[in-house]
Amino acid sequence: MKARIHVTLKSGVLDPQGKAIEHALSQLGFQGVDEARTGKVIELNLAESDPERAREQVDLMCRQLLANPVIENYDIELTT
Amino acid sequence: MKARIHVTLKSGVLDPQGKAIEHALSQLGFQGVDEARTGKVIELNLAESDPERAREQVDLMCRQLLANPVIENYDIELTT
Repeated sequence: MKARIHVTLKSGVLDPQGKAIEHALSQLGFQGVDEARTGKVIELNLAESDPERAREQVDLMCRQLLANPVIENYDIELTT
Repeated sequence: MKARIHVTLKSGVLDPQGKAIEHALSQLGFQGVDEARTGKVIELNLAESDPERAREQVDLMCRQLLANPVIENYDIELTT
């Protein structure tokens, strides 16, 4: 089973990388980009085949290692 | 219109951050994680409302700035 985890900054948290992208896009002549936000995506190959247990396990990984719950949100997508 | 862009390393390209995650997960006692790969996710708020033109525009942004096509793949998701 594969898990894809998106880790994004909570709204309100400053995102300097996103600001740099906005600035660079406008310098390159791309108009009409209001906002850019960046985040991480982590793809895991899991041995676990039960979706519920896999989700619990990945949720625990996110809270312990992959995300910082103070400033980041995460969401988990599972695919077989 | 919103665009969500996933930028991931091509298969075969070394991913030290992914390796570090694998190692850290196993140290924390999570068994059964075969592989971890990392990437970036970029969310853009676009003024453009036509999906086809938006996709073309974002594709150009990816090739010019957001991804390195030599070592990275990207995919674009559009939502209203």
